[in-house]
Amino acid sequence: MLRVGYPDFIPASYISQLPAGIELIPLSQTIAGEVAIDAWIVAPHLEHTQAVWTHLRGVKLILGMMAGIDWLVPIVGEKITICNARGAHNIATAEWTISAILTVLKYFPFYQQLQQSKQAWKQRFAATKHYQQISGDTQQHFPPMLLEELHGKKVLLVGFGAIGQQIARLLEPFDVQLTRVAHHARQNPTVHPVNELNTLLPEAEILILILPLTAESRHLIGAQQLALLPQGALVVNAARGPIVDTDALVRSLHAGRIRAALDVSDPEPLPEDHPLWDCPNLFLTPHIAAANRQFIPRAIQSISAELSRYVEGKPLENVIQAGVTVSVVR
Amino acid sequence: MLRVGYPDFIPASYISQLPAGIELIPLSQTIAGEVAIDAWIVAPHLEHTQAVWTHLRGVKLILGMMAGIDWLVPIVGEKITICNARGAHNIATAEWTISAILTVLKYFPFYQQLQQSKQAWKQRFAATKHYQQISGDTQQHFPPMLLEELHGKKVLLVGFGAIGQQIARLLEPFDVQLTRVAHHARQNPTVHPVNELNTLLPEAEILILILPLTAESRHLIGAQQLALLPQGALVVNAARGPIVDTDALVRSLHAGRIRAALDVSDPEPLPEDHPLWDCPNLFLTPHIAAANRQFIPRAIQSISAELSRYVEGKPLENVIQAGVTVSVVR
Repeated sequence: MLRVGYPDFIPASYISQLPAGIELIPLSQTIAGEVAIDAWIVAPHLEHTQAVWTHLRGVKLILGMMAGIDWLVPIVGEKITICNARGAHNIATAEWTISAILTVLKYFPFYQQLQQSKQAWKQRFAATKHYQQISGDTQQHFPPMLLEELHGKKVLLVGFGAIGQQIARLLEPFDVQLTRVAHHARQNPTVHPVNELNTLLPEAEILILILPLTAESRHLIGAQQLALLPQGALVVNAARGPIVDTDALVRSLHAGRIRAALDVSDPEPLPEDHPLWDCPNLFLTPHIAAANRQFIPRAIQSISAELSRYVEGKPLENVIQAGVTVSVVR
Repeated sequence: MLRVGYPDFIPASYISQLPAGIELIPLSQTIAGEVAIDAWIVAPHLEHTQAVWTHLRGVKLILGMMAGIDWLVPIVGEKITICNARGAHNIATAEWTISAILTVLKYFPFYQQLQQSKQAWKQRFAATKHYQQISGDTQQHFPPMLLEELHGKKVLLVGFGAIGQQIARLLEPFDVQLTRVAHHARQNPTVHPVNELNTLLPEAEILILILPLTAESRHLIGAQQLALLPQGALVVNAARGPIVDTDALVRSLHAGRIRAALDVSDPEPLPEDHPLWDCPNLFLTPHIAAANRQFIPRAIQSISAELSRYVEGKPLENVIQAGVTVSVVR
């Protein structure tokens, strides 16, 4: 019988939904000795994963509960086959992305400060000046410009996997001008290859980053790319911090060139003395986009389907790292 | 030739888009004597409108530049025909509504405070307690509950005019369970009549108010209606403040029963010593939802079409108050 290890902090009510015909081995962070398992379910918990890994023997397949497995590779190496929990974050991360874009375009952080000071009505036109600074638009508009619309904006979506596709779906009724970019070019809809990125950036009023962190995507957005963006562009990172060169981002934010909405940063957690905290035109959440209560059940559902395929000898569908330990992959 | 008055602060570039074959009369707030006009374009500027009205003679048709004309009726009376600028606010107000819902469900005001204190990573799980208080859900969830999804929520949309329909359109890809309410029942899609409201409230996780303020809709949402909502429900008002009984709302918010996202209030502007300011679980913006730079061009476009119909003797399409001064209405 296939032996499948899982983190002991995952509630039993979820684990019980895994397919029949396997032996389930709970793995504690204080694990001792050696434990032989065939497949290993990994939760996004760095310390637990590091502590457990050195005690495991015979692991052929790793089933990550998250979309991104970049942090896992340095621990387990590049020879083992790793699947992700494709679909686990689609809804939550896509919703965070749209929410973050809207909160910036509507100047909600500004209005929240007005609410706190009870000065909302008195100071309601003050955002106009802020808008003029970041947009470079010094024209006098009537009524005073207090918020922007997502409607009609030019959006560059970099990453068109499961989450990227859900973001595109949520953007649809906002009637944005959407341009898609992914690793490889595709058709229907048109997806540009990532090597065309620099030619697309000058038109991007909103740049959404939702691609995996790899050696190729590390610092994909550096000083040169930020400089190519139009004045006042909004950079949204719901993927991984190191996809953006943080030093270049800090300089660009301080220069009033761009805006940013980040759920991830580099480094992470962000130290209290990091210069990113003091940047203007920044909206930052602490890597929470996918951490809601729907996460575990959806991840277990995705993993369960992949595990069934493995047990039945069918091709795996969510292989992110095609190692040498499993041969039956799609 | 038809004489059409308009507020002199509307830029000429917009006024020039009005149909040919009319005589345009700019009206200043410091107007003196009597001015005879046939039709009057009114901007959402209370003092200007009050000052100008007493000097006008012969006005048969008022063309409001906004969706809501409730504030205009006490000034001009109930005998004059008033059209609104249907469509002028659809996109902006619908976007504000979705933005406000998402910012509450994602606890962005909470995360913004964490960002300001640079404590984002250290305190990231603190929202859990807040969620438990407002939701009444004291179950321990894993991972700790930090944000909610709009996906799958039960949404009660009260008002299904032009703006309400655009809100429904933006909600579509979030896969909410949408129930529609309007003055009269309709089919395809099903719209419930407003007299069924009390039977629908107990299921409403999100209550969106986007209906005109009339004698009937004043205090539509009072203590009884708020009490019917489920624990932790979110009340969203992008219409007019008096549709909600503010005293009842304040009590319900302080009791931790509900949450609210408001772009409008009663009274408005909200005085600095008003108890609403200190309510928990409240997100408040100062009636800005529609005040962006797209507002004037869209309003002029809508008014221009209505004015053309008037000039050509065709039925008017956006009559909100069917007065006695114009007979050719749809």
